[in-house]
Amino acid sequence: MNIPSRYIEQAVDQVSSLPGIGKKTALRLVLSLLRRKPEEVERFAASITEMMQHVRLCKECHNLSDNEICSICASPFRDKSLVCVVADIRDVMAIESTEQFRGTYHVLGGIISPMDGVGPSDLFIDGLVERVKSGQVQEIILALSATMEGETTCFYLSRRLADCNVRISAIARGVAVGGELEYTDEVTLGRSILQRTPYENALKR
Amino acid sequence: MNIPSRYIEQAVDQVSSLPGIGKKTALRLVLSLLRRKPEEVERFAASITEMMQHVRLCKECHNLSDNEICSICASPFRDKSLVCVVADIRDVMAIESTEQFRGTYHVLGGIISPMDGVGPSDLFIDGLVERVKSGQVQEIILALSATMEGETTCFYLSRRLADCNVRISAIARGVAVGGELEYTDEVTLGRSILQRTPYENALKR
Repeated sequence: MNIPSRYIEQAVDQVSSLPGIGKKTALRLVLSLLRRKPEEVERFAASITEMMQHVRLCKECHNLSDNEICSICASPFRDKSLVCVVADIRDVMAIESTEQFRGTYHVLGGIISPMDGVGPSDLFIDGLVERVKSGQVQEIILALSATMEGETTCFYLSRRLADCNVRISAIARGVAVGGELEYTDEVTLGRSILQRTPYENALKR
Repeated sequence: MNIPSRYIEQAVDQVSSLPGIGKKTALRLVLSLLRRKPEEVERFAASITEMMQHVRLCKECHNLSDNEICSICASPFRDKSLVCVVADIRDVMAIESTEQFRGTYHVLGGIISPMDGVGPSDLFIDGLVERVKSGQVQEIILALSATMEGETTCFYLSRRLADCNVRISAIARGVAVGGELEYTDEVTLGRSILQRTPYENALKR
């Protein structure tokens, strides 16, 4: 792309370095910024640098946080003996929005994926083992994606935590609420039969 | 969306204000920035503020430029008597990439679109009329999109320039090169027959 302005070109290069944003989209976004008032764009850029300066990882659960300890870990109303293991902050947000979980989290910072060069040492797994060994944790809930990488990570974690005195559970796999049986894939449907639950439990909310 | 960090939330709000970027995409982009080195993100933000500070409109053609006069208007190799009227910088880039045009441009900054509240006074039309009246321009090429708004703008410009001593032409509408007749819409095909060109011209490059 032959952009007549060096500064626009530089901004387009930067914006197109974001995932899923190509050069053409980047140019469209950059031109839309150029049409705004300078102080608005100043605020746009400042919001990104401020975020970089202030956001850090919670010392307890490794979730992204504004403070040393995140609001969930710092809350006296959360059950510290129940730890839900997730891949990243988006999973925390997804589970929080269900309003069904009153325990705390442990954010791994990704999942084991040899294809992407992510091994166990790249994740916050040692921190989890330490938390469990400190004795306060009674149950670990593995809430990772139902993919090959997610299952691998679950298996690795269960091995690492095998000699700790902790109950390990995994979130239920099965037919989605509102889902029709005939459109459910056979693996999921098979699992939902093998891992059937007493009907009284299904009625609970 | 319930983001546990105020700074991330602020950045997501800003990024999602860009056209075509929703909250979820904005969060994905912001999290990808958070995974980078601080100095990289500093450069990202700086590229946007620098662009805002340095990019301005060329005094001649109103194209975006780093200098008072853009590189095209400043070039001694461009034909100043031939002015191609376009809507915005992307059209200039598209025409430049054809390497078929050695004249100069006039960027309107949009097209007349009552639906979007854009009237003739919002565009750099007076500047064009002035340029034509100064006497140096011999031909105006209207290169606007073949939409209702584009045609309206062409009509308005032809009226405004009617009493000036200037030749007004419009880019050819017709079957795209490489296009098959049977898949061409009837309006385009009809126009391509009415506005047929001598065969020798079609052979020229």
